[in-house]
Amino acid sequence: MALSAAVAGASGYAGGELLRLLLAHPGVEIGALTANSNAGQRLGALQPHLLPLADRVLAATTPDVLAGHDVVFLALPHGQSAAVAEQLGDDVLVVDMGADFRLRSAADWERFYGSAHAGTWPYGLPELPGARAALEGSRRIAVPGCYPTAVSLALFPAYAGGLAEPEAVITAASGTSGAGRALKPHLLGSEVMGSMSPYGVGGGHRHTPEMIQNLSAVAGEPVTVSFTPTLAPMPRGILASCSAKAVPGTTAEAVRAAYEKAYADEPFVRLLPEGRWPATASVQGSNAVQVQVALDAAAGRIIAISAIDNLTKGTAGGAVQSMNIALGLDQTTGLSTIGVAP
Amino acid sequence: MALSAAVAGASGYAGGELLRLLLAHPGVEIGALTANSNAGQRLGALQPHLLPLADRVLAATTPDVLAGHDVVFLALPHGQSAAVAEQLGDDVLVVDMGADFRLRSAADWERFYGSAHAGTWPYGLPELPGARAALEGSRRIAVPGCYPTAVSLALFPAYAGGLAEPEAVITAASGTSGAGRALKPHLLGSEVMGSMSPYGVGGGHRHTPEMIQNLSAVAGEPVTVSFTPTLAPMPRGILASCSAKAVPGTTAEAVRAAYEKAYADEPFVRLLPEGRWPATASVQGSNAVQVQVALDAAAGRIIAISAIDNLTKGTAGGAVQSMNIALGLDQTTGLSTIGVAP
Amino acid sequence: MALSAAVAGASGYAGGELLRLLLAHPGVEIGALTANSNAGQRLGALQPHLLPLADRVLAATTPDVLAGHDVVFLALPHGQSAAVAEQLGDDVLVVDMGADFRLRSAADWERFYGSAHAGTWPYGLPELPGARAALEGSRRIAVPGCYPTAVSLALFPAYAGGLAEPEAVITAASGTSGAGRALKPHLLGSEVMGSMSPYGVGGGHRHTPEMIQNLSAVAGEPVTVSFTPTLAPMPRGILASCSAKAVPGTTAEAVRAAYEKAYADEPFVRLLPEGRWPATASVQGSNAVQVQVALDAAAGRIIAISAIDNLTKGTAGGAVQSMNIALGLDQTTGLSTIGVAP
Amino acid sequence: MALSAAVAGASGYAGGELLRLLLAHPGVEIGALTANSNAGQRLGALQPHLLPLADRVLAATTPDVLAGHDVVFLALPHGQSAAVAEQLGDDVLVVDMGADFRLRSAADWERFYGSAHAGTWPYGLPELPGARAALEGSRRIAVPGCYPTAVSLALFPAYAGGLAEPEAVITAASGTSGAGRALKPHLLGSEVMGSMSPYGVGGGHRHTPEMIQNLSAVAGEPVTVSFTPTLAPMPRGILASCSAKAVPGTTAEAVRAAYEKAYADEPFVRLLPEGRWPATASVQGSNAVQVQVALDAAAGRIIAISAIDNLTKGTAGGAVQSMNIALGLDQTTGLSTIGVAP
Repeated sequence: MALSAAVAGASGYAGGELLRLLLAHPGVEIGALTANSNAGQRLGALQPHLLPLADRVLAATTPDVLAGHDVVFLALPHGQSAAVAEQLGDDVLVVDMGADFRLRSAADWERFYGSAHAGTWPYGLPELPGARAALEGSRRIAVPGCYPTAVSLALFPAYAGGLAEPEAVITAASGTSGAGRALKPHLLGSEVMGSMSPYGVGGGHRHTPEMIQNLSAVAGEPVTVSFTPTLAPMPRGILASCSAKAVPGTTAEAVRAAYEKAYADEPFVRLLPEGRWPATASVQGSNAVQVQVALDAAAGRIIAISAIDNLTKGTAGGAVQSMNIALGLDQTTGLSTIGVAP
Repeated sequence: MALSAAVAGASGYAGGELLRLLLAHPGVEIGALTANSNAGQRLGALQPHLLPLADRVLAATTPDVLAGHDVVFLALPHGQSAAVAEQLGDDVLVVDMGADFRLRSAADWERFYGSAHAGTWPYGLPELPGARAALEGSRRIAVPGCYPTAVSLALFPAYAGGLAEPEAVITAASGTSGAGRALKPHLLGSEVMGSMSPYGVGGGHRHTPEMIQNLSAVAGEPVTVSFTPTLAPMPRGILASCSAKAVPGTTAEAVRAAYEKAYADEPFVRLLPEGRWPATASVQGSNAVQVQVALDAAAGRIIAISAIDNLTKGTAGGAVQSMNIALGLDQTTGLSTIGVAP
Repeated sequence: MALSAAVAGASGYAGGELLRLLLAHPGVEIGALTANSNAGQRLGALQPHLLPLADRVLAATTPDVLAGHDVVFLALPHGQSAAVAEQLGDDVLVVDMGADFRLRSAADWERFYGSAHAGTWPYGLPELPGARAALEGSRRIAVPGCYPTAVSLALFPAYAGGLAEPEAVITAASGTSGAGRALKPHLLGSEVMGSMSPYGVGGGHRHTPEMIQNLSAVAGEPVTVSFTPTLAPMPRGILASCSAKAVPGTTAEAVRAAYEKAYADEPFVRLLPEGRWPATASVQGSNAVQVQVALDAAAGRIIAISAIDNLTKGTAGGAVQSMNIALGLDQTTGLSTIGVAP
Repeated sequence: MALSAAVAGASGYAGGELLRLLLAHPGVEIGALTANSNAGQRLGALQPHLLPLADRVLAATTPDVLAGHDVVFLALPHGQSAAVAEQLGDDVLVVDMGADFRLRSAADWERFYGSAHAGTWPYGLPELPGARAALEGSRRIAVPGCYPTAVSLALFPAYAGGLAEPEAVITAASGTSGAGRALKPHLLGSEVMGSMSPYGVGGGHRHTPEMIQNLSAVAGEPVTVSFTPTLAPMPRGILASCSAKAVPGTTAEAVRAAYEKAYADEPFVRLLPEGRWPATASVQGSNAVQVQVALDAAAGRIIAISAIDNLTKGTAGGAVQSMNIALGLDQTTGLSTIGVAP
């Protein structure tokens, strides 16, 4: 029998992508859909690509509306998830697609988000060592940020293999949907098309402590992360270009072996054949991660690059994958590794 | 038991889209994949978004390779399908995604394609009056062109309802994948991005006689078509802006009623609520057609606009839909009306 | 000695483009720059491409600030220009880049804009018959709308030559800057990129009466216009696809001759060699108009297509060109026919 | 009196951009235009944005055609410039926009280009220490690569100030015109739009030794460069994200001061106000370089980011700027710092 799922925040990009995936999920029936300022509108006016749900009317996000579902997805601005989750029973699976429960360090939370730390939930990146076990049977899931998903999967095998120095340098390009549906001038099509621009440079991006948390856990020592996000003229996709100095004596073969080992059994991560590099178009609309790695002998650095769809594996697909694991379903249920290209 | 399907022309955009859809089709098993100049390569190097088929090697397009399948899809340059089809048994379902068997008039074929007419097969646009019946049980299908799909579905209800004069004026914008993977300077990203440009203006586009054929059949009289295709800076999608003078006395209500009647039972065509207009992004990757119509009282014209994904409903999705009908499956099997947006 | 020019509305796209052109104009010195909600900000924060003006601070739009200039450009929301203009002396050249003074018919204005008609000023499209003379020496100029510029220049030679029936059908694609810097969801990069969509369909677009006014004046009889604007995934450019039934007996030679005659001496309009068609990229950032025309004998229609940069010839370039004429300068001063491509 | 300039390679993107700039240069008259496979064609068919030159016919690239000009620009595939230059007199200014004469190390050339080293000419990046003096009066100029231009200007002040460790890590995004007009599948619009992808990863890009050469010269010691170029879905522009470990004790103030000092008198390089970051759209079509720098205290790195137009400052604009210096003209003649945006 299908599980019922409610979605709080159904009018945004993350919520829309989640509904796209849930519509294709054989074990889920879509229940309540809620929104904030868009409550009362038909979904067809806001998500015109979701034809089967076009006549559904968005409710306000209240405990009553969200009650009575097996799973509740929260696609809310940060800071709002804890209050909603408290109203839901411990037997309800709550999947938070926001940032509230990702960080273990209350100090990091307070420094980057400027509010009280809500807590820490099992982290929905099952490819990371130990993460899958924590998700199994859990009734609370913190879905990772889109950049930390791309970066952690690009780099963790190098740290797991003891091959990289604990100073990672990362430049990532994201499609504009990563910034959400916010009405800001720099997100207008006229300003975005034909332009690349950085933001949050110099350590200020809120995803930085999440990357540090992930990579440090794998490395077994503190890893610093220099992270430069850039906005790219495309709707979807993240290309993460990551590097770290190679531990002296590291060979290209050892690097390749570490990545092959890390991803041998992962259905969503594909280490590409040598010589081929990821492109975001190849993973558009899919839950796949395409990864490639190289050793730059002259510079003495490991270069690892990943491509994901920020809305799918980076948000809604990662949420569904983790939901599957928490509920004991096959983690691939309702998800695809096939991109929509060209 | 799954039907086996071979794809001739698997390295192009139409072939790639077909494989994307067949991978999600529960009743089809993908058999031989062939190519011309790309024979011998792995599919992963050519269609990096199709991860499950990455290690499949493309064969040359020969009768031997294509033999023994239940269905053979042909995504070949025009003029080549007849010779291949002749080698396949009458019990094999041959779905031609090229132009060879679309036109009924040999004279039109010769004028627009400059070669001998190969014949006429049942036309794979089941939403057109009479088309579905001709497809049922057929073992030969001519998949329509992408523009004729968009234009015929935008305009035929007006002609079916006797509301439009037989002179249609059409401007359509297509994404660049409609031009295929051909290496031509005007298709380079540097030239396409940021630019709109027309081509084949003044009646020269090969899809014109196909539109005339479709609309004239519905109208019961010859319809002239003035067709201006334009190349738009996007990979996928067709937006067809179509109009015709309204027959005197036509009311907005009558126009709306004609379209509601035409599409009341069509799973893939959505007549949008009044006041909302189609966008190609809403149908990206889906087999849906979004349609809207209005009566411009001042100009005395019916304006009908449709949006499709040129590779899906416009090519490969239309092929699968028609295959389903020919084989007695539900026409929606393996197809979706949900777009990948934003 | 340089003329001083003030710009009211310097923080929008039209104002920014005007400043780009004025910076290159040898006879103009840029004076006061004003804005509404952006008053008090440095221009560098709003128009980061205008480096020489980066440290200029925007003033509020008041009569005091605008006083004392030789030329005042108004890039204001419609309805605001008349009040500002009244405060400026009759000897000041006021160039209104908004809609307020374009229409001759008060009834049309009221129907499309819903407010009282402010009046009619000389119309800044000097290529139209009679327009140049009205601009010479004038101290008030109404800059045409971007769509009417593209459409009128594509079609008027056909009407001037008596070759076209008085029923024009137009589909035009515009870059997103045509919608201005307004913060609306459908203008977000995430929604615009990869998508074509129509708007204002069925006669509702406010530029329709302006096209009717222009074409009817040339034709000497009322011309109806069916106008379908579409939003294209590019920052700049308009491609106007226009057609009308050819008067019986019209030959391709006569059509060509009419266009050659119309544009033989126009420095900004280029009738392309036969067989080549305009592309918006070719006129990016330039004041050029590229035009091509064909006779579709089968459909009996004249097809005329033009490409302009909506911000240059369609707005700010047209304004400068008209200013030049009004002031007795060579109309090409400070303007270019060279596009920025690819 | 105007100097005559010939352009060898006028049908490519670099040649086209050079012609766009030379048309606006008050001291240059455009002479012979040559091409290889496009010889015999009119320029209007290849560079439709250059209306004033539309009827010029391309000649074959021969010594006779190039003879008799004051300046000859070479926009040829690498390896061909030396032979052409030898045929031109020592009094002719030869500006090589290709790679042949950029590197000082013959070993580097042979390793990255696989052919014999042609020699070393004065390097056309006048903002680098010592470069301007070498250009003055020179009759041979090697125009830098587009990436080395962006990267060197982003990073050299940090090395000049002794603030950065000699291990630079760079990720740069380039518009597709950087790859030229080559007909390659991955450069098709269908594949480029909506996609970010890396190439030449791990030290293999030919611009790497040029960056090393520039930065090492400034640093006074060997600098390693880890360079990851990526292809971005836009026609023009380079965004270079560069970083290096800060020398212990480096303060944010010292970093800022080093950049202010380096660029205080450079007309084309703008160090942005603190808190604002470059965008490629802001420099489109202009010769400007927008630079910003920050100290990431947590990661201990200096992050410097630059934006250029790869065809203007990155190629043709840099060529004209260096030509101006060589000829004793003001270096800004015919060049602009104003971008075409949005």
